[in-house]
Amino acid sequence: MGSKGSLKTPKGTRDWVGGDLLLRNHIFQTISTVLERHGGVPLDTPVFELRSILSEKYGEDSKLIYDLADQGGEACSLRYDLTVPFARWLSMRTDVQHIKRYQIAKVYRRDQPAISRGRLREFYQCDFDIAGVYGPMIPDAEVLCIIAEVFEAFEIGVAVKLNHRKILDELFEIAGVPADKIRTTSSAVDKLDKAPWDEVRKEMLENGLSEEVADRVGGYVQRKGSMGEMLENLDLIPISPQAMGVIDLVSFDLSLARGLDYYTGLIYEVIVGDGASDRTQVGSIAAGGRYDDLVGMYGRRPLPCVGISFGMDRIFTILDARREKKSSSDLGGQVQVYIMAFGGKEFDGLLLERMRVARQLWAAGIRAEFAAKVKPKPLQQFNTSEGVPVAVILGQGEVEAGRVRVKRLHVGDKAAEQKDKGQLVAREGLVEEVVTNLLLDPVLLGFGFGRR
Amino acid sequence: MGSKGSLKTPKGTRDWVGGDLLLRNHIFQTISTVLERHGGVPLDTPVFELRSILSEKYGEDSKLIYDLADQGGEACSLRYDLTVPFARWLSMRTDVQHIKRYQIAKVYRRDQPAISRGRLREFYQCDFDIAGVYGPMIPDAEVLCIIAEVFEAFEIGVAVKLNHRKILDELFEIAGVPADKIRTTSSAVDKLDKAPWDEVRKEMLENGLSEEVADRVGGYVQRKGSMGEMLENLDLIPISPQAMGVIDLVSFDLSLARGLDYYTGLIYEVIVGDGASDRTQVGSIAAGGRYDDLVGMYGRRPLPCVGISFGMDRIFTILDARREKKSSSDLGGQVQVYIMAFGGKEFDGLLLERMRVARQLWAAGIRAEFAAKVKPKPLQQFNTSEGVPVAVILGQGEVEAGRVRVKRLHVGDKAAEQKDKGQLVAREGLVEEVVTNLLLDPVLLGFGFGRR
Repeated sequence: MGSKGSLKTPKGTRDWVGGDLLLRNHIFQTISTVLERHGGVPLDTPVFELRSILSEKYGEDSKLIYDLADQGGEACSLRYDLTVPFARWLSMRTDVQHIKRYQIAKVYRRDQPAISRGRLREFYQCDFDIAGVYGPMIPDAEVLCIIAEVFEAFEIGVAVKLNHRKILDELFEIAGVPADKIRTTSSAVDKLDKAPWDEVRKEMLENGLSEEVADRVGGYVQRKGSMGEMLENLDLIPISPQAMGVIDLVSFDLSLARGLDYYTGLIYEVIVGDGASDRTQVGSIAAGGRYDDLVGMYGRRPLPCVGISFGMDRIFTILDARREKKSSSDLGGQVQVYIMAFGGKEFDGLLLERMRVARQLWAAGIRAEFAAKVKPKPLQQFNTSEGVPVAVILGQGEVEAGRVRVKRLHVGDKAAEQKDKGQLVAREGLVEEVVTNLLLDPVLLGFGFGRR
Repeated sequence: MGSKGSLKTPKGTRDWVGGDLLLRNHIFQTISTVLERHGGVPLDTPVFELRSILSEKYGEDSKLIYDLADQGGEACSLRYDLTVPFARWLSMRTDVQHIKRYQIAKVYRRDQPAISRGRLREFYQCDFDIAGVYGPMIPDAEVLCIIAEVFEAFEIGVAVKLNHRKILDELFEIAGVPADKIRTTSSAVDKLDKAPWDEVRKEMLENGLSEEVADRVGGYVQRKGSMGEMLENLDLIPISPQAMGVIDLVSFDLSLARGLDYYTGLIYEVIVGDGASDRTQVGSIAAGGRYDDLVGMYGRRPLPCVGISFGMDRIFTILDARREKKSSSDLGGQVQVYIMAFGGKEFDGLLLERMRVARQLWAAGIRAEFAAKVKPKPLQQFNTSEGVPVAVILGQGEVEAGRVRVKRLHVGDKAAEQKDKGQLVAREGLVEEVVTNLLLDPVLLGFGFGRR
């Protein structure tokens, strides 16, 4: 055990610590806030599912699923995404007719080439989905709206590429083509590249379409241009993204085809930038779509769903690049107060007193530390307090008189630090004096990224 | 796929949703706040580790480890606790000499009898550990202090049962017995139950102890009573828990023996109540101890550690029992504003306007919803708005005049609701009027449990 070679995390996984993890939590918090504003309810599912739940959901990608070993009992696999567990949950909770749920959790894929591009086998996804029967395109538009709000919150400029698994089918339906005539209409339209519109129209009428419906179909399929232009001329779809004010982000991209099996309708990918660059080059930062048949596959009831999955890694990479260089205190916790003690020959280290001061500060919600030695050396205490904004300094004589010294450490300003002798205060006034000093540098009072 | 029998979560696992999950997150947040106050740095490790990392760490319990299937590549297992992954991380990060780290994450145990007692195979732990060389007992006392602070924060009364894997060895060391004489001193003390103290003392002196050390040993080993009494008479140990103000929580319990292999020193369990009840009956709510040899087992370097693991399930059960009965809005998200539209025969549903109002409220950080139908029925909108504190009401004529109505819904007070006609405001004044109405019921403004 413990040979040098095996002392590592498994392939495709990594540890997260300190500042990186705080940034990740900040991302989770920012997204959750947006999702809860939209009525999102958090869901957490087990990290593994019965293998049968995952089967026949991912097509080709199924080979990337991690299985648990057979140790007696049920056959289980690690979850591959958060969509299938959500559909499983919806199938069990038949009392739930409508829900907006979100889940932030790790997923697992035995993905070989992805690692070489900096992607991992264990990575976080954040999914938001709307399940239930709603007016057409209304929840889809809300998801697009959420995409806009999330990336606004991160101040990341994005474009949304849109496609539809059955874009023509949908257009036909909207144009009023009866369900049983969609195949024949599709077949007629397919001839448009070699036959004039009049001939195609004639075939449609022979197939039983009314003149009105045929002309509407012609109006759609002969149009070229941006999604915005297309949508403007449709009756229903444009209301939603226009009202949501996100129409400008969206563009149509026939090259987009999400790999997973379960999508049935609108599909979209979010890319960084203005959308002018090639989708396949940049890679997506979020993706999703409509999957109306997945819940029904479990045999209990059908329930249409639409959703979005935010890729945490890409968002992390972008925000990480914006951070100022990481400080050495990354692994020291962001201590607000360091408690020191100094004295002459008779000095016993004042451990008891340092602990009492720490308890006093902790009780007041202040992040305080002290050297965990009976008799710490001055230099050791100075070194450990580096980067900490405020010191509480204990001297033998002062402690006996019931007083301690509170002093700003003027991080990065040696001259100011040496000039500042601090303030001698009674123990009752300690917390107030510390808070006052922390407030002199409000940046240091907080801990989260939001206040940096 | 999808036969009725297999539509469930794997044995020993469950889904978490809505209010339950918000309570769980509240617990995580409360604990994190205390731990960060003590300089705790968050760590996140992969859900599975190389199998070799976990082997020979858990003794008998190793058979409960979940293995991943052999799909080619490394042999991996799901983590069994958070202590071993932390030790593995410390072994890799030899640049880290001192750290206080915490981790809140799921662990996995194929535990048969536990399920019958309401425990699960996938469950959360929250671990806090202090690694590094410090003055004796100082970090141990800080861990006890953290235990006190965490349960004070939850307003859960607890007692801490203490024992020591090598309690006598430690006492000998504190008494000043040289390391190479601990075995012989132990052997001499072992005779105390059949020989008088004078004889035992004589044997110690023959073994090379000084009279002073031998008498100190005698003082310790002949004493009976509570840990508090014992500690009061020791030189060093009592300073810490006394200064930390947690001595009253602690009592000594020789029956305590943590099952895991890696503990080397102090071990403790936290139980609910005043400690008068039997430890084995109640079960522990937190447990931990000192493990000075675990990091060294990976062959890179030794590093002493001490820590505590909080059992999330027990804490959840206690806090859950205190909650008021769950509302039906548990799965609806805690919506603050419901946007409705009503009209006569010509009424088109005002979907576009409802969406615009929603966008306006979302942009202001307000949790708003509306019926996702083109023409929602009045009754449907009333039903969906149940439990929501404030409504924004749109009428055709008012909308054309640029106005909307804001109205408190007086949850639980039908008479007040019918009397209150609300306030007609211009669109520019909408957000302000909504916030004013939310503030009339400040309980409803927040979302977290802290504000309930």
